[in-house]
Amino acid sequence: MRIRITGARITPVAFVDPPLLNTVGVHQPFALRAIIQLDTEVGLVGLGETYADTRHLARLEAAAAAITGLEVFALNAIRAAIAEKLRGDDAAVGTAGMITTASAVDQVFSPFEVACLDVQGHATGRPVSDLLGGLVRDAVPFSAYLFYKWAAHPHGQPDAWGPALDPAGLVAQATKMIDEYGFTAIKLKGGVFPPDEEMKAIEALHDAFPNHPLRLDPNAAWTPQTSVKVAAGLAGILEYLEDPTPGLDGMAEVAAQSPMPLATNMCVVAFDQLAPAVAKDSVRVVLSDHHYWGGLQRSRLLAGICDTFGLGLSMHSNSHLGISLAAMVHLAGATPNLTYACDTHWPWKTEDVVRAGVLEIRDGAVRVPTTPGLGVEIDDDALGALHEQYVRCGIRNRDDTAYMQSVDPSFKAVSPRW
Amino acid sequence: MRIRITGARITPVAFVDPPLLNTVGVHQPFALRAIIQLDTEVGLVGLGETYADTRHLARLEAAAAAITGLEVFALNAIRAAIAEKLRGDDAAVGTAGMITTASAVDQVFSPFEVACLDVQGHATGRPVSDLLGGLVRDAVPFSAYLFYKWAAHPHGQPDAWGPALDPAGLVAQATKMIDEYGFTAIKLKGGVFPPDEEMKAIEALHDAFPNHPLRLDPNAAWTPQTSVKVAAGLAGILEYLEDPTPGLDGMAEVAAQSPMPLATNMCVVAFDQLAPAVAKDSVRVVLSDHHYWGGLQRSRLLAGICDTFGLGLSMHSNSHLGISLAAMVHLAGATPNLTYACDTHWPWKTEDVVRAGVLEIRDGAVRVPTTPGLGVEIDDDALGALHEQYVRCGIRNRDDTAYMQSVDPSFKAVSPRW
Repeated sequence: MRIRITGARITPVAFVDPPLLNTVGVHQPFALRAIIQLDTEVGLVGLGETYADTRHLARLEAAAAAITGLEVFALNAIRAAIAEKLRGDDAAVGTAGMITTASAVDQVFSPFEVACLDVQGHATGRPVSDLLGGLVRDAVPFSAYLFYKWAAHPHGQPDAWGPALDPAGLVAQATKMIDEYGFTAIKLKGGVFPPDEEMKAIEALHDAFPNHPLRLDPNAAWTPQTSVKVAAGLAGILEYLEDPTPGLDGMAEVAAQSPMPLATNMCVVAFDQLAPAVAKDSVRVVLSDHHYWGGLQRSRLLAGICDTFGLGLSMHSNSHLGISLAAMVHLAGATPNLTYACDTHWPWKTEDVVRAGVLEIRDGAVRVPTTPGLGVEIDDDALGALHEQYVRCGIRNRDDTAYMQSVDPSFKAVSPRW
Repeated sequence: MRIRITGARITPVAFVDPPLLNTVGVHQPFALRAIIQLDTEVGLVGLGETYADTRHLARLEAAAAAITGLEVFALNAIRAAIAEKLRGDDAAVGTAGMITTASAVDQVFSPFEVACLDVQGHATGRPVSDLLGGLVRDAVPFSAYLFYKWAAHPHGQPDAWGPALDPAGLVAQATKMIDEYGFTAIKLKGGVFPPDEEMKAIEALHDAFPNHPLRLDPNAAWTPQTSVKVAAGLAGILEYLEDPTPGLDGMAEVAAQSPMPLATNMCVVAFDQLAPAVAKDSVRVVLSDHHYWGGLQRSRLLAGICDTFGLGLSMHSNSHLGISLAAMVHLAGATPNLTYACDTHWPWKTEDVVRAGVLEIRDGAVRVPTTPGLGVEIDDDALGALHEQYVRCGIRNRDDTAYMQSVDPSFKAVSPRW
C-alpha cells in the first residue's frame, strides 16, 4: 500500500475572538488559522491546522510543493524536504511576538505531519493515538484559561463573557467557565496589570476555588526581582509560575529562589534550547505545543526528553480550532508523563471548521476520539464561511500590539514591564 | 481492526560462537538468544530476539503473561504492564557483566516491542522502518568487528578465521572480513592485551587500511591515566575511542584530555544515565542498542536526545541472529543522525533461525527489507535445531569469565586492568 501525497489545499480562515488582554496587547476581533487538507493518490485526505500569518502561508505553500510526491509514512523525508526548502528563512511566526525563537521548520512541518498521521490512521484503521504508542488516558484534562478582558471590542457588541478587569471579574469568569466545562485547574493570563493586582486576583481565585491548582502566566512581564517577590507572595497557592521573566538566565535566577516550579512556553520553544535550559536549570516544567515543536512525533520526543532530564510536561495553547484540539488530545492521551491539565483557548471561540459532536469538554476533560485518524471531519460550509470571513476581515498577521495601540496610542510592548 | 496479543512462544536457542576474547574472558562455545513469536487474535505472528540467560527467560515468560490481551498498538500500556510485573526486580542480564546498569524493564520490553511493530507492519502492509518515520538510507553501513581470538575452543576444531593474538593476526582477520563483506570501517575489541600491544595493533590496521575509520573498545580495561596515554598515542588514527575506563567520572576525566571523541555502551546504557553524562560531558558518542534501550521507538527517543544534546550516535552489538539484525537495520535506516557505521557480530556466526536470503552484508552495508514488518521469517527447522542445541549444550547463562577461568584458573575479571 503506497500512499503518495498529491498536493495540499491550504485555506486561511478567521474566527471571532474576544478582546483577551495580554502583556503585548489584546487579541484582535478575529483569530487566524490555516487549514491544511493533504491530498493523496488513494483519495484519503489528511487534516492539519496551524498559524496563518502571511509569511507562514507562503512557507506552507512552498512546503506543500516540496513534499508532493512523497509518501505519508516518509516523515523523515518530508521534514528534510521542508528544511531544505526553508533554508535561511528561519524566523518564527504567528504568535504575536511572544514565541520568537521557535523553529520555522518545525512550525511549517507540524501541520503536514499531523495531516500525514491522519492519513496513516485512516489507511490503517487506527486512531492517531495508536500511532503514538496508544492511550494512557481515555480523556485529557484541560485547565480553565482565564483572561483579563474588555466587555467588547471597540465599536463591537459585548460577548457572552462580560468584562474582567479586576479580581471579582476574574472570579466571575472562572465561575462561569467552570460551571460550563467542569475544569479542575485554572490558569490566568497575567502581565496585564501591575503584579500586586494580579497577585490579588490569584488570591481571590484561590479563595473561590481552593481545590483547583492555579497557574499564573505574565508572559515575561516582570524583572527577576519582581518575579521573586511575586513567587514568594504566592507560595503554596500556585501549582507553577509560567514565564515570569524573559530569557534562560533570568528564569534560572528566579527558579533558584522560587518556592514553586517555573514553567515556560517562551524560553524553551525549540530543541536547541533544551540543552542550555537543562544546564542552567532555568525551568522545571516545559509547556509543549505541537504547532511549533514539529508535530506529534517530535512532541513525543520532547516528552521523552523531559522525562529523561527530570522536567515536568504541560501543554500550551494559542487560539485554535477543532483540528488542533483533536491533535492535542491524541498526543496528550498517548503521553504518559503529560500529567498537568493542558491549556486550551477552546471556550473562547464560537466558530469552527470541524463538524460538531466529536470534541467536547466535560468534567474538564476531552475524550480522545477512537475512530480512525484524528477522528474529526471538515464541515465544508463552515470552512468556506470562515475563509470568507478571513477575506473580509482584512487581518493578515496576528498583531496584538498594533491592535492595542489603535485603542491606546501610548501603549508599548515592553518586556519586562514591571 | 483490533489486534490483541494472545500469547508469546519464547524459545531459547544456542548457536556456535568462536572463542572471541575480551577483557572479562572469552566467548563460550555457544551464544544464547531467546526467540519471541508473539501470537495475535488475527493470526499474525510478530518476531523478537533477545538475551536468554535463565533470569531473563523467566522475566520474558512473566512479561508475556502480563501483556496477553493487550493490543499490539498499545505500546505504552505494554511497557507499563511489564514495568509493573518486574517491579523490584531490576538487575540487567545477558551481557557477561559488561552492561550492568541497563534497565531490566527496557531489556524485557524490547523484544515484545519489536514483535508488536512486526505485527503492526504486517497488519498495515508497511515495513517497520515506515513505523519509525521512514528510511533516510536504503542500506545501513556496518563496521568490521575484529576480535583477538584463539584458533579454536579448547578441545574444539579450528574455525574458519584462524587465531588472532597479535597485530599480524588482526590484520589477516581484517583482510579476510573486508574481502568477504566490503566493510568500510573497523572496530577492534581490545582490553585483552596490555595497551601498548593493542596500540601496535591499531597502528598496523591503520597502515593496512589507511582509509578505514578505526575504533578501539577495551571495555573499561584502563585507568584514566592509561586511557589518556593511549588516546594521545592514537591521535589522528582513531575515529572514536570506546569505553577506555569505567564510569561517568573517569570517562569525563579522559574526555577532557582526549584528542578523539569518547564513545560508550557501558556508562550510558539507560535513560537515567543521560542527564549525568551530559552534565559531566563524559562522552561524545552513544552506542545505541535496542535490546537494552527498550526497543525501536525508545531507541528513536535516544537518537533524538543525542541530536538535541549534541551527542553522536552509533550502534552496539552483542552476538545475535537475524531477527535482531532486521530490527537493527530498520531502526538505523530510519534514524537520520545515526551516521556512524554500526557494530555487528554477524560475520562470526554460522547458524541462524531466519530464512536465508533477506539480510546480506554487501559493500559493508545491509539493505533494509522493504516488505511488510521486519521482513524476515522464521525457519521452523532451524529454530528447532538451535533450540535442541540449547538443550544439549548445557549453557544457561552467558559467563565469559567462568569460561576463561576453566582454561586459565588464575584469570580474574578486573576493571580497570591496566
